[in-house]
Amino acid sequence: MKLSRLLVSAVACVALLACSKPPVAQGGHPNLILTKAGVAAIRAELGSVPLFDQSVAAAVELVDAEIALGIDTPVPVHFSGGYTHKRHKQNFIVAEKAGMLYHILGDEKYAQYVRDMLMQYEALYKTLPVHPQKRSYAPGKLFWQCLNDSNWLVYMAQAYDAIYDWLPADERDLLEANLFRPFADYISLENPQFYNRVHNHSTWGNAAVGMIGLVMKDDELIERALYGIEDDGLAMGLKDDDGGWIKMPGQKAGFLANLEEPFSPDGYYTEGPYYQRYAMYPFLIFALAMHNAQPERGILEYSDGVLLKAVDALLNLSDADGEFFALNDAQKGMSYYTSSLVTAVNIAYHYGAGNPGLLSIAERQGEVLLADAGLAVAKGIAAGQAEPFAKRSVNLGDGPDGSQGGVAVLRAADEALTLVFKYSAQGLSHGHYDKLSFSLFERGDEVLQDYGLVRFVNIEQKGGGNYLPENKTWAKQTVAHNTLVQNRGSHFGGDYDTGSRHHSELHFYDDSRADIQIASAVERNAYPGTELRRTMAVVTTAQSAKPLVLDLLRVRSDAANQYDLPFYYHGQLLESDASVTQLTPLRPLGDSAGYQHLWLEAAGRPAGEQTQLTWLNAGKFYTLTSAVTEADELLFTRLGSNDPNFNLRRDAGFMLRRDGVADTVFASVIEPHGSYSPVSESSTQPRPAVAGVTVVVDTQAYTAVSVAYQSGQQQLLIVANDSADSSVEHQLTIGEQSYQWRGGYFFGTR
Amino acid sequence: MKLSRLLVSAVACVALLACSKPPVAQGGHPNLILTKAGVAAIRAELGSVPLFDQSVAAAVELVDAEIALGIDTPVPVHFSGGYTHKRHKQNFIVAEKAGMLYHILGDEKYAQYVRDMLMQYEALYKTLPVHPQKRSYAPGKLFWQCLNDSNWLVYMAQAYDAIYDWLPADERDLLEANLFRPFADYISLENPQFYNRVHNHSTWGNAAVGMIGLVMKDDELIERALYGIEDDGLAMGLKDDDGGWIKMPGQKAGFLANLEEPFSPDGYYTEGPYYQRYAMYPFLIFALAMHNAQPERGILEYSDGVLLKAVDALLNLSDADGEFFALNDAQKGMSYYTSSLVTAVNIAYHYGAGNPGLLSIAERQGEVLLADAGLAVAKGIAAGQAEPFAKRSVNLGDGPDGSQGGVAVLRAADEALTLVFKYSAQGLSHGHYDKLSFSLFERGDEVLQDYGLVRFVNIEQKGGGNYLPENKTWAKQTVAHNTLVQNRGSHFGGDYDTGSRHHSELHFYDDSRADIQIASAVERNAYPGTELRRTMAVVTTAQSAKPLVLDLLRVRSDAANQYDLPFYYHGQLLESDASVTQLTPLRPLGDSAGYQHLWLEAAGRPAGEQTQLTWLNAGKFYTLTSAVTEADELLFTRLGSNDPNFNLRRDAGFMLRRDGVADTVFASVIEPHGSYSPVSESSTQPRPAVAGVTVVVDTQAYTAVSVAYQSGQQQLLIVANDSADSSVEHQLTIGEQSYQWRGGYFFGTR
Repeated sequence: MKLSRLLVSAVACVALLACSKPPVAQGGHPNLILTKAGVAAIRAELGSVPLFDQSVAAAVELVDAEIALGIDTPVPVHFSGGYTHKRHKQNFIVAEKAGMLYHILGDEKYAQYVRDMLMQYEALYKTLPVHPQKRSYAPGKLFWQCLNDSNWLVYMAQAYDAIYDWLPADERDLLEANLFRPFADYISLENPQFYNRVHNHSTWGNAAVGMIGLVMKDDELIERALYGIEDDGLAMGLKDDDGGWIKMPGQKAGFLANLEEPFSPDGYYTEGPYYQRYAMYPFLIFALAMHNAQPERGILEYSDGVLLKAVDALLNLSDADGEFFALNDAQKGMSYYTSSLVTAVNIAYHYGAGNPGLLSIAERQGEVLLADAGLAVAKGIAAGQAEPFAKRSVNLGDGPDGSQGGVAVLRAADEALTLVFKYSAQGLSHGHYDKLSFSLFERGDEVLQDYGLVRFVNIEQKGGGNYLPENKTWAKQTVAHNTLVQNRGSHFGGDYDTGSRHHSELHFYDDSRADIQIASAVERNAYPGTELRRTMAVVTTAQSAKPLVLDLLRVRSDAANQYDLPFYYHGQLLESDASVTQLTPLRPLGDSAGYQHLWLEAAGRPAGEQTQLTWLNAGKFYTLTSAVTEADELLFTRLGSNDPNFNLRRDAGFMLRRDGVADTVFASVIEPHGSYSPVSESSTQPRPAVAGVTVVVDTQAYTAVSVAYQSGQQQLLIVANDSADSSVEHQLTIGEQSYQWRGGYFFGTR
Repeated sequence: MKLSRLLVSAVACVALLACSKPPVAQGGHPNLILTKAGVAAIRAELGSVPLFDQSVAAAVELVDAEIALGIDTPVPVHFSGGYTHKRHKQNFIVAEKAGMLYHILGDEKYAQYVRDMLMQYEALYKTLPVHPQKRSYAPGKLFWQCLNDSNWLVYMAQAYDAIYDWLPADERDLLEANLFRPFADYISLENPQFYNRVHNHSTWGNAAVGMIGLVMKDDELIERALYGIEDDGLAMGLKDDDGGWIKMPGQKAGFLANLEEPFSPDGYYTEGPYYQRYAMYPFLIFALAMHNAQPERGILEYSDGVLLKAVDALLNLSDADGEFFALNDAQKGMSYYTSSLVTAVNIAYHYGAGNPGLLSIAERQGEVLLADAGLAVAKGIAAGQAEPFAKRSVNLGDGPDGSQGGVAVLRAADEALTLVFKYSAQGLSHGHYDKLSFSLFERGDEVLQDYGLVRFVNIEQKGGGNYLPENKTWAKQTVAHNTLVQNRGSHFGGDYDTGSRHHSELHFYDDSRADIQIASAVERNAYPGTELRRTMAVVTTAQSAKPLVLDLLRVRSDAANQYDLPFYYHGQLLESDASVTQLTPLRPLGDSAGYQHLWLEAAGRPAGEQTQLTWLNAGKFYTLTSAVTEADELLFTRLGSNDPNFNLRRDAGFMLRRDGVADTVFASVIEPHGSYSPVSESSTQPRPAVAGVTVVVDTQAYTAVSVAYQSGQQQLLIVANDSADSSVEHQLTIGEQSYQWRGGYFFGTR
């Protein structure tokens, strides 16, 4: 049967049930996500709010199919990707939806299904040893890690809440004594190294304990959720298997600590958007549960409402297709279409300021939460209140007080071009060693990429779906990113402790002008004795049909070094104006710090003081124009050496190498231009509009770069290296021309 | 202004003009594509047939923008991709549309525009030497090759036809004397090596001369178009720069010869669909012009209506996204959305049997021809007559009488899986040396690829957009395809003359069963002394959620050889059950016949008598299961060595190597299974349903292969090697079981 027909009949059934209006259950539950008032409102509106009805119909389809299949709670055996893992995961997802459906449709078969499943878990759980797969620093019982056990409890608490009032008291007692209480204790008291830290793992653990505590009205569990375990007995300096600290001096624990520390006041989550997306669900779901059950605690409004701000920040950390930027460990392709973002967008709309832009995202998601917030969103859409979610340039501070560096997202022409400039802190154990790196998108297409992670999440064939060795040896290393490498070593020597003590610093950020969106940041600790100052801008000019990127990377060092600046492009190389020789045989570019994974495919020397490289990707042309010296080497790399299990993609890279200098400036323009269609076989503007880029000044105080266009026009960018204070007046004479301005930079026609 | 708004206003303008009803022009013109009756009908319907109105509006937008820009007819300088090439190409496209608009809208500005442009060409052309870029065996004057000059004349003849009656006689005389007649003579009499052969180039030339001959009512030109030049003075055995023959003994020339020779009775065009798509336009446009101007010749109905059948064949040679299979030289991405297919589909519908399936393709194309045929299509769509264009399995014979091998397209589950099995003739100068090769598609995704060509059509940076050296050294070579290579040499030694004397032979083809679609063919000449017999089937079975491919390649040889069987997969390798070692450094796999372009990334030995390889592409899993011997080598290749200009994609390959045997059987199953979503991060069925494949019989008479599934079930395919005659009864005992059947094969449960 086609989905559309299924939906129609399911909606018809929903409408029918709505008419028969079964009584709203009495008692104190549900009161976590779905509330008694919400149930009443939903029943009143059922059959008249299309997106809500569709979401109910989809849930009915899913849950009814599972009911028909029968409940299976197998003895745990597998890693993620394997059967028992996937079955237990599916169980908690389905049980939570069944609980919602019981209230929305008033059909007891859903309550019965949840009860039967929980009873099977009660019988199973009390027999379970620790999970047989021992790869985690905190193995769970149902799953190979406590993290997944916590996922289970966050969802099952909602399912239990849904049928709480319907269940006989003796069955509740049985479930709480043999399943929920021991389960909560196992992931917290018995695994403090998992539970009692600042990490997305702990957030899940805290939320799980808190959610079940709320259902059970167990204040001790709620306190444990909010504030952690007071005496965890953990050794100071303990680390997890990703190298992340478990315990540091003065460190707080619990849900509130997890809310305070990783989120900046702008709502940026220090691990990056991929993990923020994962953590948002327990953050929001527990905060909302607290809001409904104990509103006097003000958890949803905690820390100036940072949780709702975080939803906005997260949406802004996505490309035009809604895919999250791959900052730090991140699997590409993850987007705001994921179910945790449905929850996040719904809650942010309903409990926040009712931003109509969120409605258009919910429309794209095509699904709403089966609770009060989802109804509000679906009604807003039905009322035609949706507006486009306009993404503009944004600068998000990192760290608890927003002063530990950050991430600037520079956008031009309604996401036609999006530059992601990372000058953040380390990002906890999922952080990469890539200070002042960037990635670039033309609408939803990656132009210059951040590699992401080396992991095939939930694909069993690849190391059980877990992190692969190349994540450490390649993805986290500096050379895997579009940023500067000194002497073929990673930032902070690739040392997590050192990296975690430092962060880059914002020099200036300005998105107030139509012709330029710009950010500048400094890194002084990645290589002791070396200062890196990178200024990146998205420029909109009549000289070029599309916006382009200006990249000015200034290096000051105590000593002469070898500097490598890679650009990881996608697609087919079309032309280089350099003298390039392909190498045979292919050898790795180095033996450590990620270099061991790069084949050196070809090498060349620039023909003059400029070099241009043009490539084609997804029907669009791109040209990188760089100021070079004749001594520079141009290296063409291909990922994949020392990769015995084919864990790495065979991606291309272009690297500028400058050796034997202490102070230097790398100046480049990245220009998207034209298009090519394999259907019409016609190309438009296959050549760049930029003719060259030249460093015209580089002093202690100022660095200036000039961009020349084919038209003969020139533009000038001057960065004031010493001060970005907008009250400070600068004056610089270049040639016969004198430039005067206030603040960190000058940009204009030369 | 948004396109939608532009369309609305243009349609409004169309409707307005329709109301004012300017008089239909008097005289004998137009009478090529657009006819006087057509003009009257179009004017009567204008404003009431949406797709036609949209197409008019789009043409108005295009032409009006060009009129505003002004006419430019630059002195020719560039290769394809360069400015003068693109400008002259744009000119003829716009002029043809302007001519149509003049009649449809009755606005003289369009006639004036065509006249002005033609007059500029008259002034230019008489001054022109041969084009300065001398890379073609037949340089043009406006363009670097006569081929493009012919394109120009085919379109300009239509533009001239449109304004013929409107032009003063003296201007017509001027144009004909100084432009059209010398132009037609140049591409024919002065370039017989281009004009007087059987080749898509000549088809364009013939059509060009014929079209202008029809407008000028010049019988000599029309005869020259239909029958070629009688005494061309060409030397026998002459070749073009692709190595294609220009003149062979007994060879006819002209449009009719070009219609007879390359098309088979099934409508298969021997060069393959990519060039068929290109040639269809002049074939159909000139045939239609003849049909309208001299219907008594019966050109459109010629050779049992092969031209209209060819449109159907061509549409069947596309994947679920409408992209043509890359048989022989073919640029990937070319599809039935290209403008020549708009013409083809419209003409096939209107002048053929009115197949309603063609209307759904026209709907997808979103555009119709601005002539009688386009109106008919748009009216059919408006009347709701469109039906899906159902693609089923099809076997297309190659050669003038359909007996020179062919191409079988095996489809299962409405294009869920499509296997393209090539057992054709050489395919003229665009042919590749890949007897019994195949490619595989899951809906619109390539699973196992044919590389296509090495050329970036109209991208100037890549050799002026022309064929690149690697087209010969890689793309045409046998090892670039999913077929057997003996002793690291290409079929026919890669010799065009030898290849052109032979073709594979069909053993049997059967698409009558629901559980199996199957084709079998033999090749006896690719390697003298060796017989290759390949049987490929698409199997639909309850054992596997998706259809799968059975591949049985039997080799008989006079001598022991080394056999290589490559599979060019897309995507990420997940797992091999063999013992595989990555190699460092990387060296090319060989030094000739395409092997010089393959890096050997890794090599291994199978663990037993089966080997399985699983990969992930575009969110779907695939497993290749092959019967092997322990002496087989498994080679993992990566394209790109000896590629100094980065002309090749860095595509992956897996190769089975079997050495030192004369007779052998390669038996494999290619199984698509499951899916993976990076948004939900969940995988379904990441493991194959197939457990193994075994060759159970291989005698002179029979070859049998058994497929074992994880369920324990087995299926058996027996091929009768000696006879595929359906009247012949076979009997074979395997183990304790006896199998009886009629015809070329048995397939069933074991």
